Amino acid sequence: MSFREHLEQVCRNVDGAVACSLMGADGIEVDTHVQADAANVDVKSLLVEYSAVLRSAREAAEAHEAGGVAEIAIATDKLLAVARTVSPEYFMVVALRPDGNYGKARYLLRVTAPRLRSEL
Amino acid sequence: MSFREHLEQVCRNVDGAVACSLMGADGIEVDTHVQADAANVDVKSLLVEYSAVLRSAREAAEAHEAGGVAEIAIATDKLLAVARTVSPEYFMVVALRPDGNYGKARYLLRVTAPRLRSEL
Repeated sequence: MSFREHLEQVCRNVDGAVACSLMGADGIEVDTHVQADAANVDVKSLLVEYSAVLRSAREAAEAHEAGGVAEIAIATDKLLAVARTVSPEYFMVVALRPDGNYGKARYLLRVTAPRLRSEL
Repeated sequence: MSFREHLEQVCRNVDGAVACSLMGADGIEVDTHVQADAANVDVKSLLVEYSAVLRSAREAAEAHEAGGVAEIAIATDKLLAVARTVSPEYFMVVALRPDGNYGKARYLLRVTAPRLRSEL
């Protein structure tokens, strides 16, 4: 299965999913599947900015010996983004509408991340 | 009810809760209730660092017109922190063990935040 197919599968199975990306920890996108439009939000650009947020969370957690960041979720008025670490260099993120199925998104990230990791 | 009582009530009602804080957006703590020890993690210091993470998420969301950040959750190997905006200047955050009740924590933040806001 290609990266894109995994990302597409996550979107297809999560109600309210807008996009799913595999990204480098540096914010450079490896692949993205866009499922739907988000209310006037440039989701791809937002996810790049969020990768910096993930990096700063990582640095904070490491500095305080809280361990690696497994997951981070950011909910705004228009979009919910859930990111999961795939490897030290990569993470995957799914963006949903605020009324999307957050629990299902988390579950699918948890099961898909190891599959992506094995293909990296 | 004092701030501290609200924070204590959240901790008491969330399995696995370690601490609950009301903090300024600048990372300065208003009040904190510490319920339990976290595995060698200095939770108070970590939450101060996480306030910077919340600020950078806010800036990213605003820059991309995704609206205000309502909630952010950061899960590491040793600690799960869930923060909720109380007002533009304040947020509250609950720290849990990784096996703590995340759903209950989110629910209680959602209902407690407006109560704290009305007392600020």
